Amino acid sequence: MAKGIGETETQFHQVGSADEPFVFASGAKLPGITIAYETYGRLNARKSNAILLFHALSGSQHAAGITKAVPGTDARWTEECQTGWWDLFIGPRKALDTNRYFIICANYLGGCYGSSGPASINPKTGKPYGSKFPPVTTSDVVRSQAALLDHLGIKQLHCVIGSSVGGLLAINFATMFPERVKIVMPVAAGCRTTVLARLTLFEQVMAIENDCHFHGGDYYKGAKPEYGLALARMISHKTFVHLDAIERRARADTKQPDGQLSWYRVGHNVESYMLHQGKKFVRRFDANTYLRICNMWLRYDPLKDVGVETYDDLFARSREAGHHYLVFSIDSDFCFYPEEQAELVAHLERAGVSSMHITVHSEKGHDSFLLEPELYTPHLCYTLEGRWKKSSLDSVPEVE
Amino acid sequence: MAKGIGETETQFHQVGSADEPFVFASGAKLPGITIAYETYGRLNARKSNAILLFHALSGSQHAAGITKAVPGTDARWTEECQTGWWDLFIGPRKALDTNRYFIICANYLGGCYGSSGPASINPKTGKPYGSKFPPVTTSDVVRSQAALLDHLGIKQLHCVIGSSVGGLLAINFATMFPERVKIVMPVAAGCRTTVLARLTLFEQVMAIENDCHFHGGDYYKGAKPEYGLALARMISHKTFVHLDAIERRARADTKQPDGQLSWYRVGHNVESYMLHQGKKFVRRFDANTYLRICNMWLRYDPLKDVGVETYDDLFARSREAGHHYLVFSIDSDFCFYPEEQAELVAHLERAGVSSMHITVHSEKGHDSFLLEPELYTPHLCYTLEGRWKKSSLDSVPEVE
Repeated sequence: MAKGIGETETQFHQVGSADEPFVFASGAKLPGITIAYETYGRLNARKSNAILLFHALSGSQHAAGITKAVPGTDARWTEECQTGWWDLFIGPRKALDTNRYFIICANYLGGCYGSSGPASINPKTGKPYGSKFPPVTTSDVVRSQAALLDHLGIKQLHCVIGSSVGGLLAINFATMFPERVKIVMPVAAGCRTTVLARLTLFEQVMAIENDCHFHGGDYYKGAKPEYGLALARMISHKTFVHLDAIERRARADTKQPDGQLSWYRVGHNVESYMLHQGKKFVRRFDANTYLRICNMWLRYDPLKDVGVETYDDLFARSREAGHHYLVFSIDSDFCFYPEEQAELVAHLERAGVSSMHITVHSEKGHDSFLLEPELYTPHLCYTLEGRWKKSSLDSVPEVE
Repeated sequence: MAKGIGETETQFHQVGSADEPFVFASGAKLPGITIAYETYGRLNARKSNAILLFHALSGSQHAAGITKAVPGTDARWTEECQTGWWDLFIGPRKALDTNRYFIICANYLGGCYGSSGPASINPKTGKPYGSKFPPVTTSDVVRSQAALLDHLGIKQLHCVIGSSVGGLLAINFATMFPERVKIVMPVAAGCRTTVLARLTLFEQVMAIENDCHFHGGDYYKGAKPEYGLALARMISHKTFVHLDAIERRARADTKQPDGQLSWYRVGHNVESYMLHQGKKFVRRFDANTYLRICNMWLRYDPLKDVGVETYDDLFARSREAGHHYLVFSIDSDFCFYPEEQAELVAHLERAGVSSMHITVHSEKGHDSFLLEPELYTPHLCYTLEGRWKKSSLDSVPEVE
């Protein structure tokens, strides 16, 4: 077994100030925002070994190791959060080898794990922003993290990686700031919001909005929209986990939940399992952040963010910058279907971008990218080492 | 064009009485229930030409022609309800030829279109039953409709047909009362509740239960759980209509709905389209009935209803009764996937039941069974005429 990286800590970086506010894509302004982030490994002297990692919808800056607490997250930093979500992939001799690379992961702007978000205190009022926290776009997240890289003195990343919705952000980053990255790795992602994703996300928005306690997002003083958030999580959870796995995992007894259902009697352990997933989730997440990320995903538009009309023009930026893409598909994924990665790769090929597309076979569905490092590690390592070309297989080039 | 059957009318039949109450599978009793039904064509002297039709989740007894009003349905009998839901299939020289057959369709027990249901007045209190209306199982619906056949003097049906959840009922009827039917036609259905169906149905239950106005089902005096029901409909609607069709239909402008959303701004015409579907639906349907049918589907158990352990034993009853099954699949269906009909047919074949399995190609998804009579009519007609065997193709046997 590769060794873990032990105890880790979240750090905070302030972007903007009262004089130079952070301007959202919507035009809204905040007088400085906080970005919560973690790093693993060491930045080399040339600052050329950095990898930026974008987390998935419900993830956080805490990708590896053990972080026991994060200031400002109230009771949301539950035990479930304490082990990094990509701990199986990050560490000495793992896919993202901390002996070689400096890995950065930051909580999304709008998040609830330490970055400025709806639950953060508005300095003007002394109360949480709630509904007043602006809508966030992926370009807002990308710009806030580019500012973090400036702070760390990193001009160009060795690689940007994102899984699930994080893959959308990786593409957004690479095409907004092509000169700032060399390798791009979208894992179980796509390059647009499909109709099915739109429908599913919109259902989740409705589930939260319909909750009696939502009040437009100004619920921090009283009861939280827990049932709405739990339903939203249930709707998305079924796209993350393969149905067979849901059936296998749902072996516990059938339980009627306290308080949550008034007429309906739970009749099957699959129902109990989903309720359990929903209820577990609401303890660790904020409904307003969930909405901000659904909204971000629903409005994902990497073309508009760089002012082009077609994907050919979008990825021409990657070709000109000399990017290489490693695209992963999971054959049983029905959150981001393999067709979506195929579509992305077709765009890349048409635009003349260097790319490699690997489909892994898994019975775990979308969640495979969290659980099965052995399926991804070989290609991840080879690509990070620059060995994606036939001619490169003979020698292991050093990272600059 | 085949001629329609013009104006039609809903009739009502009382099952049970104060002395002989109707006993639900749960053990609950009501002192008589009402079944709303319609018939098309004429019952022959031998009463051998009857076809019983089970409607889908949101359907009604009104399968063909124009029924302008139904007593006791309040404002739910909207214009949308007035044309029969299978009007393209029922009439002179249509698939269910009213010159030859006598077609019966009844609203489910628990329904909101004239059969006893949660919105019906409880004679004991003078108020709607609401939460007090018992849970309904498919076997309750089947037994209530068997009682209707008794009333009409029909001992044996020529055929029982059901589409979507109606197909589950057709199989339940045929195996509970094997001697009462000759031909069984499940259209775009299955023979069990799959994990995916269970998850989707449970989400719909939660959507309604989470609505601030639900009050366990006792909402008839005040505001109704409209947003919850609209969300439930949106969740199911995406499984009925092919995603490409949703995209094509959603050509109207993007509109922010009045009152329904407080923080989220609708950003795409697909979202407007789904909201429109949800809002249109709540005008014509009762949330308590919706819950009763979701519950019925979630608890579907045709084995338990006849006290057997396996599908082999279940369909042995069909073999012994000499049933013939015509099973239809739609290749683009993702409400009841083609694999589900294949599973049903495998059971039938193993049990030695005469069957034929036809898959139609459609771009319309599950809803094809409502919209494309040309895909179903030839096999429907031949099978109803008894011409499913090679040897029968030379002559057209008369219906007895």
